[in-house]
Amino acid sequence: MCRFLAYTGEPVFLDTLLIEPASSLVSQSLAAREAKTLVNGDGCGVGWYGARAEPGVYRGTLPAWSDANLASLCHQVEAPMFLAHVRSATSGEVSMANCHPFAAGRHLFMHNGQIGGYDRIRRSVEAMIPDDLYARRRGNGDSEAIFLAALGHGLDADPVTALARTLAVCTRMMHANAIASALRFTAILADGDSLIAIRWASDDHPPSLYWRQLDTGIAIASEPFGDPGDAWHPVPPGSVMTAGRGEVSFNDFVVAA
Amino acid sequence: MCRFLAYTGEPVFLDTLLIEPASSLVSQSLAAREAKTLVNGDGCGVGWYGARAEPGVYRGTLPAWSDANLASLCHQVEAPMFLAHVRSATSGEVSMANCHPFAAGRHLFMHNGQIGGYDRIRRSVEAMIPDDLYARRRGNGDSEAIFLAALGHGLDADPVTALARTLAVCTRMMHANAIASALRFTAILADGDSLIAIRWASDDHPPSLYWRQLDTGIAIASEPFGDPGDAWHPVPPGSVMTAGRGEVSFNDFVVAA
Amino acid sequence: MCRFLAYTGEPVFLDTLLIEPASSLVSQSLAAREAKTLVNGDGCGVGWYGARAEPGVYRGTLPAWSDANLASLCHQVEAPMFLAHVRSATSGEVSMANCHPFAAGRHLFMHNGQIGGYDRIRRSVEAMIPDDLYARRRGNGDSEAIFLAALGHGLDADPVTALARTLAVCTRMMHANAIASALRFTAILADGDSLIAIRWASDDHPPSLYWRQLDTGIAIASEPFGDPGDAWHPVPPGSVMTAGRGEVSFNDFVVAA
Amino acid sequence: MCRFLAYTGEPVFLDTLLIEPASSLVSQSLAAREAKTLVNGDGCGVGWYGARAEPGVYRGTLPAWSDANLASLCHQVEAPMFLAHVRSATSGEVSMANCHPFAAGRHLFMHNGQIGGYDRIRRSVEAMIPDDLYARRRGNGDSEAIFLAALGHGLDADPVTALARTLAVCTRMMHANAIASALRFTAILADGDSLIAIRWASDDHPPSLYWRQLDTGIAIASEPFGDPGDAWHPVPPGSVMTAGRGEVSFNDFVVAA
Repeated sequence: MCRFLAYTGEPVFLDTLLIEPASSLVSQSLAAREAKTLVNGDGCGVGWYGARAEPGVYRGTLPAWSDANLASLCHQVEAPMFLAHVRSATSGEVSMANCHPFAAGRHLFMHNGQIGGYDRIRRSVEAMIPDDLYARRRGNGDSEAIFLAALGHGLDADPVTALARTLAVCTRMMHANAIASALRFTAILADGDSLIAIRWASDDHPPSLYWRQLDTGIAIASEPFGDPGDAWHPVPPGSVMTAGRGEVSFNDFVVAA
Repeated sequence: MCRFLAYTGEPVFLDTLLIEPASSLVSQSLAAREAKTLVNGDGCGVGWYGARAEPGVYRGTLPAWSDANLASLCHQVEAPMFLAHVRSATSGEVSMANCHPFAAGRHLFMHNGQIGGYDRIRRSVEAMIPDDLYARRRGNGDSEAIFLAALGHGLDADPVTALARTLAVCTRMMHANAIASALRFTAILADGDSLIAIRWASDDHPPSLYWRQLDTGIAIASEPFGDPGDAWHPVPPGSVMTAGRGEVSFNDFVVAA
Repeated sequence: MCRFLAYTGEPVFLDTLLIEPASSLVSQSLAAREAKTLVNGDGCGVGWYGARAEPGVYRGTLPAWSDANLASLCHQVEAPMFLAHVRSATSGEVSMANCHPFAAGRHLFMHNGQIGGYDRIRRSVEAMIPDDLYARRRGNGDSEAIFLAALGHGLDADPVTALARTLAVCTRMMHANAIASALRFTAILADGDSLIAIRWASDDHPPSLYWRQLDTGIAIASEPFGDPGDAWHPVPPGSVMTAGRGEVSFNDFVVAA
Repeated sequence: MCRFLAYTGEPVFLDTLLIEPASSLVSQSLAAREAKTLVNGDGCGVGWYGARAEPGVYRGTLPAWSDANLASLCHQVEAPMFLAHVRSATSGEVSMANCHPFAAGRHLFMHNGQIGGYDRIRRSVEAMIPDDLYARRRGNGDSEAIFLAALGHGLDADPVTALARTLAVCTRMMHANAIASALRFTAILADGDSLIAIRWASDDHPPSLYWRQLDTGIAIASEPFGDPGDAWHPVPPGSVMTAGRGEVSFNDFVVAA
């Protein structure tokens, strides 16, 4: 599984959270303690909100630990909201187009998890994607498909409902195809104003998700980083956390059976 | 548009045809005389038949002229049949997965041309691809889609008919979507025994295709290369050329309206 | 030869100068009108000054026209001073380490030209590089070598003199090795406060260099871009132009024989 | 540290040794049991001898486990002698030019280890490289430098002596610069006829090296692979193993103090 980190708060240089801390995301790309695959070396990416309405995105196929552009960018860019992701490929080969975060309009999306048996229902999942968005699909993995499908389900207006509907349809497709493996979905969606972080699975094993109040804002990450004494809180399974403008709220995240 | 070259005959080192001749494919990657886009710098690829039932494939995103691996491989590999391609991207971004040739089983396929208005009918074109092949689709361009769709139309048993049927369906989709631009299809399919080269378009402008009898075999290419006096013959528009085991034959290639 | 562009003035988004104008640097990467090599497809790079003391740098081996990260970065980053470069390799293979601009401390450097017969004097040129800088040399081309050697000749304190001295030593090395081809050096050095643009050659053919007063600042480029009526001025051969804080000055650039 | 494998014997497909066995080199790229760095994800390479006098070489910056070209090449190429390497960068950044094996004429060379304090003596080490070879130096790491320096010390005529002399000079340079860390050198040199494998260090910790008699030939590798019961023999520290034409011999490898 992959690892990721998102931040919202006062503008900070990306490297202060992504590179400098102990067990930072870049060092996690070499060995993630809680992840099932030890190495997240199948590409990396960052997305950030700056002076434009649309976020900036950098994605590359090299492991994060050896990507000099990523290091320079994270040292240089200061942002009030950003997402970062290191990939361990499950569906979709190693390519820039399959790296997270994915961008569409003002939204950024990244995902840790997978649709069980995706190859058997890929076309059905993709059928949920509106035509205009489908023409811009670049990769071939499940994460980008969920994001684009959710845009078709009204993500712009009501993102949590749109994602829940998308996952509900995926779940039904899996049942219809007698796929026994689980749908696991720990993901973060950003729009420049707030972060929406979801931790959910069709079984009891949603990928880990933690959050922490920093001096300057809120960090949400696949696993804690920084000093051992730092207070990280798990995001409960089956819930959605919203963070932005200094506020944090939690709700149940329910996917209709 | 792209440029390509295919060869069948006695085993030759790939570089004797791809790199050493005047106006070779690699130098064509810098400036192709008959192509509409001057530079074919959006990746390259070679596929060749060796001791295995399945062909070898090398594809990369660098321009052919600066790809040291391509140069070493072409210098080292000797083969009785091979395909090579330099890309000028029309549909599908620059990525390894969108580079030609595409491989499936014992087949190799490469294409120069495009489906007009592809983005508007992409999903319909992809709907022709059988599920098991669809799960292995890696790129997002029209060329790979045509190849996989033709496999679903019986390319294994009767490749010319399968390709004609696939193009016929594409043409009907274009009509149904009121797409005015043309479908142009100059392509080569190989199976280790023979090369099938097709030059066809829905209008009067199929991309160029030439062939030549060499001392060691047959070369088929987007445009002539080598010494000016070399005898290259155009493959007529609307025809299919089959070459293999020392023989060459020509037939009409008809796409049902 | 390569193509480049530098800017100093009010902060602007990089793409307003690099991508949007007619004949922009990215479109120049496909066909540069005044350059001797038609295609500048051997990598690209940008460097910019932001909130840090040291500049940010992005470099990649793909041609500029197909580099999605470059496009996103240039759309997102707003800077009061930046450099951009598209490469046509002369010395040093295509690699990230050989892409311009080169960075050291607060300095950025990019170069269009070459040291004639560089391979024969490479080691001597490199001998001018101080030990601590040599340990950080990443590429193997002449441009990076000149930059690092000039740092050893006091570029921090007096950049014009340091570059002139470096080129003088190179010229003597070329004479000593009976190298007949020319040393051509059109280059830009930045430190966050000002741009120093030099156009010089040991013969009568220094690579082209132009500058223009924009509404927001000064642009210096290998060749004019934008609307045909825009007023571009050539930087005279054998001269150095300094631009920064709204002022422009010109001086002779003399390399001692 | 890196991992590598070399083979000499009857022609075999490369993947039968590099990919198919349990704990193969490609799976070792994810987790090498005896290596000090857990991941060898900083690029990979193979070199092989075919019908040409010079070997073929493929090198790439992606981790071996995600390199589709490497997999296809290893499945397709059959060779009586080949070298393969997965890198964990110590000196020299991640780039194609720093990937092993290095080629010069009919020779291939790969290395696992490092020159302690290399950055402080890099220029002195490079001073051993003959001018004509120096012009072709592509990377900036210690391994390529040792290989090219040994070519200058007569590697063509007497490879073991040339390598021993090169290491002796390196050792003296380290002493002269008061470098306390060790010079560790486990390496394989091939010329198409035989493999020369050396395991040596200036301290008591030369990187591991094993060899095994296969049905078809001899394999030499950083660590055993295949079934647990397979009989692998360590190459003793301070020794050189020569394998070729069905014969194996061992000698002391002495580096003059």
